[in-house]
Amino acid sequence: MAETSDDAVLSDPAYRAAAIDLLAAITYGELSAFERLVDDAKLAPRLSDKIALERMAAAQFAVIDPLLARITELGAEPTEALAPFKEAFDDFHKQTAPSDFVEGLVKAFVGDALAADFYREIAVLLDEQTGALVRETLNREGQTDFIRDRVREAIADDPKIAGRLALWARRLMGEALAQAQHVAAERDALTGLLTSTADRPGLDLASLGAMFTRMTELHKARMEAVGLEP
Amino acid sequence: MAETSDDAVLSDPAYRAAAIDLLAAITYGELSAFERLVDDAKLAPRLSDKIALERMAAAQFAVIDPLLARITELGAEPTEALAPFKEAFDDFHKQTAPSDFVEGLVKAFVGDALAADFYREIAVLLDEQTGALVRETLNREGQTDFIRDRVREAIADDPKIAGRLALWARRLMGEALAQAQHVAAERDALTGLLTSTADRPGLDLASLGAMFTRMTELHKARMEAVGLEP
Repeated sequence: MAETSDDAVLSDPAYRAAAIDLLAAITYGELSAFERLVDDAKLAPRLSDKIALERMAAAQFAVIDPLLARITELGAEPTEALAPFKEAFDDFHKQTAPSDFVEGLVKAFVGDALAADFYREIAVLLDEQTGALVRETLNREGQTDFIRDRVREAIADDPKIAGRLALWARRLMGEALAQAQHVAAERDALTGLLTSTADRPGLDLASLGAMFTRMTELHKARMEAVGLEP
Repeated sequence: MAETSDDAVLSDPAYRAAAIDLLAAITYGELSAFERLVDDAKLAPRLSDKIALERMAAAQFAVIDPLLARITELGAEPTEALAPFKEAFDDFHKQTAPSDFVEGLVKAFVGDALAADFYREIAVLLDEQTGALVRETLNREGQTDFIRDRVREAIADDPKIAGRLALWARRLMGEALAQAQHVAAERDALTGLLTSTADRPGLDLASLGAMFTRMTELHKARMEAVGLEP
């Protein structure tokens, strides 16, 4: 039954274009996250943290090839599919260059968690195989724990940085939303995914609002968990 | 028989200190190489090259944990063992920051190959298990091929860069030797490894000279192979 439904969905060119766009955005985002994690590792005052972050980056890279393979399966040339997302991610990172190691950690923590929340929400709108692949890119819970613990530790060591980091996290969230809106405005196929058809569920305006509310609540809870005012 | 010999060698504290130093230098060098490869990937004009280099970097990271584990087995705390090598490698990379993507590729190609030549030479002086581990870090032949082909392609596309790149490769070699001498002067245990004892082979001044000659010859052959005057 699931297969019949997948076949129907996948034969729709608009759906395929949307799924390719989504996978391409995720892939470019993961490539960027990999690079930034290595950048941040270079700022680590402790060699053990440097190694831990680079190990984490190397392990996260494992998600890239399956994502590229699925883009090919859906009929696109991967590097062509990724190109339209370069600007938004590069601009985001240019606008949010961390000024020290802890800001880099907060950025990795916030960015990774927001991406994970988004993948979890969006996976239900995708065909079974693509949705499963998107969910698999989330399998790095233990890694986020390490970053969260190091942020918490840094704040415990020097509580006066909490104010600056809270503002920083808010700026990150703001810049991420700005770039997401920018992408949504330019990629009609992607936004079309949010609209339901006979063959697959979609999101109306109300459920889109509910999705953003859920993501914001999770972000607030995470900020409080590391000792930052959301 | 090999085991008996290994036991005798490993019970010598001077040998253990030397092997730890050597593994630590290799590990810090590999961590640095990982970071520089990702830096270089960021400069790639083509998205496909960016992905290829980052894939290579992520795969190379796999050598780190076995190296750290062997340092622990030999009785040292890995991050303490690595610390004395930070300055030499960081200085080398500060002195040789590539000004563009192709310079970064040449640096990765030259550096990786020199490291591989050195590992191959030095592995014979080590106890069996440590020597095997050092040889295993060499298992990335296919990766060097990719970099070599891209350098060759860049020169074919724009032959006038060959002169600049040849000078660049010579500077890299010079800086690498300067830092190696710096390390050798400071780490008595490491240079002690080069002297033979009853339990293990070593290098006298003549065989040390022969080793450098072999490494220089290999370097020259590689430069010619990519179209650069050695």
